[in-house]
Amino acid sequence: MPPTTLRRIVLARQIEGAPSPDHFRLEETPLPQVEEGQFLIRTLMVSVDPGTRSRLSAGASYAAPLAVGAVIDGFAVGEVIESRHPKWAVGDRLACGAGWADHTISDGRGFLSKITDARVPLSVWIGVLGVPGMTSYFGLKRVAQLKPGERVLITSAAGPVGATAGQLAKAWGAGQVVGIAGGADKCAWVRDACGFEGCFDYKAPDFDGQLGAIMPEGVDVLFDNVGNAMIDRILPFMRKGGRIVISGQVGDYNTPHDQRPGLKNTAYFIANRLRMEGLVVFDDIRGFAAAQTEMAEMILAGQLQWREIFYDGLEAAPRAFADLFSAADFGRRIVKVAEPT
Amino acid sequence: MPPTTLRRIVLARQIEGAPSPDHFRLEETPLPQVEEGQFLIRTLMVSVDPGTRSRLSAGASYAAPLAVGAVIDGFAVGEVIESRHPKWAVGDRLACGAGWADHTISDGRGFLSKITDARVPLSVWIGVLGVPGMTSYFGLKRVAQLKPGERVLITSAAGPVGATAGQLAKAWGAGQVVGIAGGADKCAWVRDACGFEGCFDYKAPDFDGQLGAIMPEGVDVLFDNVGNAMIDRILPFMRKGGRIVISGQVGDYNTPHDQRPGLKNTAYFIANRLRMEGLVVFDDIRGFAAAQTEMAEMILAGQLQWREIFYDGLEAAPRAFADLFSAADFGRRIVKVAEPT
Repeated sequence: MPPTTLRRIVLARQIEGAPSPDHFRLEETPLPQVEEGQFLIRTLMVSVDPGTRSRLSAGASYAAPLAVGAVIDGFAVGEVIESRHPKWAVGDRLACGAGWADHTISDGRGFLSKITDARVPLSVWIGVLGVPGMTSYFGLKRVAQLKPGERVLITSAAGPVGATAGQLAKAWGAGQVVGIAGGADKCAWVRDACGFEGCFDYKAPDFDGQLGAIMPEGVDVLFDNVGNAMIDRILPFMRKGGRIVISGQVGDYNTPHDQRPGLKNTAYFIANRLRMEGLVVFDDIRGFAAAQTEMAEMILAGQLQWREIFYDGLEAAPRAFADLFSAADFGRRIVKVAEPT
Repeated sequence: MPPTTLRRIVLARQIEGAPSPDHFRLEETPLPQVEEGQFLIRTLMVSVDPGTRSRLSAGASYAAPLAVGAVIDGFAVGEVIESRHPKWAVGDRLACGAGWADHTISDGRGFLSKITDARVPLSVWIGVLGVPGMTSYFGLKRVAQLKPGERVLITSAAGPVGATAGQLAKAWGAGQVVGIAGGADKCAWVRDACGFEGCFDYKAPDFDGQLGAIMPEGVDVLFDNVGNAMIDRILPFMRKGGRIVISGQVGDYNTPHDQRPGLKNTAYFIANRLRMEGLVVFDDIRGFAAAQTEMAEMILAGQLQWREIFYDGLEAAPRAFADLFSAADFGRRIVKVAEPT
């Protein structure tokens, strides 16, 4: 029986401060017919991403805000269950930008990445081999232009972007890889499982002392996922010619623009010839396939670690999203929407 | 009669807030003998540079603070009046980092740039062809990597760095060059003499409205000489892939570190893939000669405008320096120390 109903999660009201499940609403509508040139994707899993938060407030002037009633953006793994498109066949699996919906009709345009390597788990295609992993890869390679021997500091180091970035940096010959994370459990995992040379808790009283002790020669590359207050504390530790990658700002998303902490230590940009750059990973989409091949080999060789937390059912996506900003556990949050056929 | 006395200006006490002449002291000491391998430079002119301010406070942690009693750094034009050095002959003229002193003994190391082109005025070698001009040149070329057709916004546009940067950007094919300056006189000069397409007063009540009206397509390259508060206002106007050159921070030098305004609008770094980089022009010293040749031709063709304000006598340097931060007139401030032979 082909499905006749589309279930999706939409924005119920714009968010101020921390997100909670009641900012979202589950909606059911009839599923349209698949027309010539289209195909139907059944969503198997969707991810929740902190970057989505930046579009869920009114007046989020730097990124087009999502309208109330719109489906929430997000990356998904799905399988094709009906096709009238020449390039996609029933049974094909893919990663795509389906958003929080149980089915999607596609015309073959936009972000659609066929999964051709069945050796790694499906969820990994929206994790280490998906947007977080690609962000790590191109953030280090294209934006930071990491060179062997350099000293790398990664914030939110237990998150899917940070943990992957640190392991890639090690694999690519970084001289030192250090993480910053929140709490002893995360720090232990970053050190013990991911092989960072060190990791310390940003909530510890002596931030500067810890950073200075663990990286006495300073930082060549800061890969930041947190935001202004964190970068500002680290700027005095940057080495001459250092690069700062602005990968995410999870520490700032819930704060209105005009109340965010500011970067004050910009004098170091002159003194130490620093460069800071933001990235949106879709600029690198043509490189995804090669990066995924390289990283899949690392996974199969046991050289890339990650953690996942699974949620059951599309209706759990709002909770998973809220947990991104509040939960004590950590790992890539994956919402299982349907079982693979 | 060879000179026997060295006159120099030293830091009398470290500065908090705005500099004034009483932060400095004129000192006279016996001039040492010129030893084998050395030569004696008589200073003809010295310049005062706002960047020097960053080293004149206690606890200026990002740049080594100058000690009380030390000679003030600065660039000078001089002539060789005695030489026991194989490469320098009596009568040679040069630009050098002599500091605020009427004579300097050199061993040939450090920044010494022989003046071989007598067609441009001597003062220009510490102006448009000196550190300010080189900052403009390499800030646009190496740091911003300006491409033809791009839209360039320059702050402190009537200053020696800003005015030169705008004229170079025009010469190199920028699609639009706009300045920001303080007051109607500066703006008029930037537009009328330097040929910027527009210039507006940063003190005007409707900053955003003026910038949006004059640059409706936004800014590809921001060449900033002012500091955090200025950059923060302009970040929302940056185009995708825009670059921000931190050339100077004259608006922040007199404010203690922890009281400086912060950059809050860093979310635009992600949304618009912005890159911000600081420069110290001496990193480009190997390119100075070629850049000076290129710019000297522009000067001789009447394609580069500048303004100068002259002060008489080494003892006027502290007043010239204080005027950098307070005077209503504008132009490169040059202190005449001695007449050329």
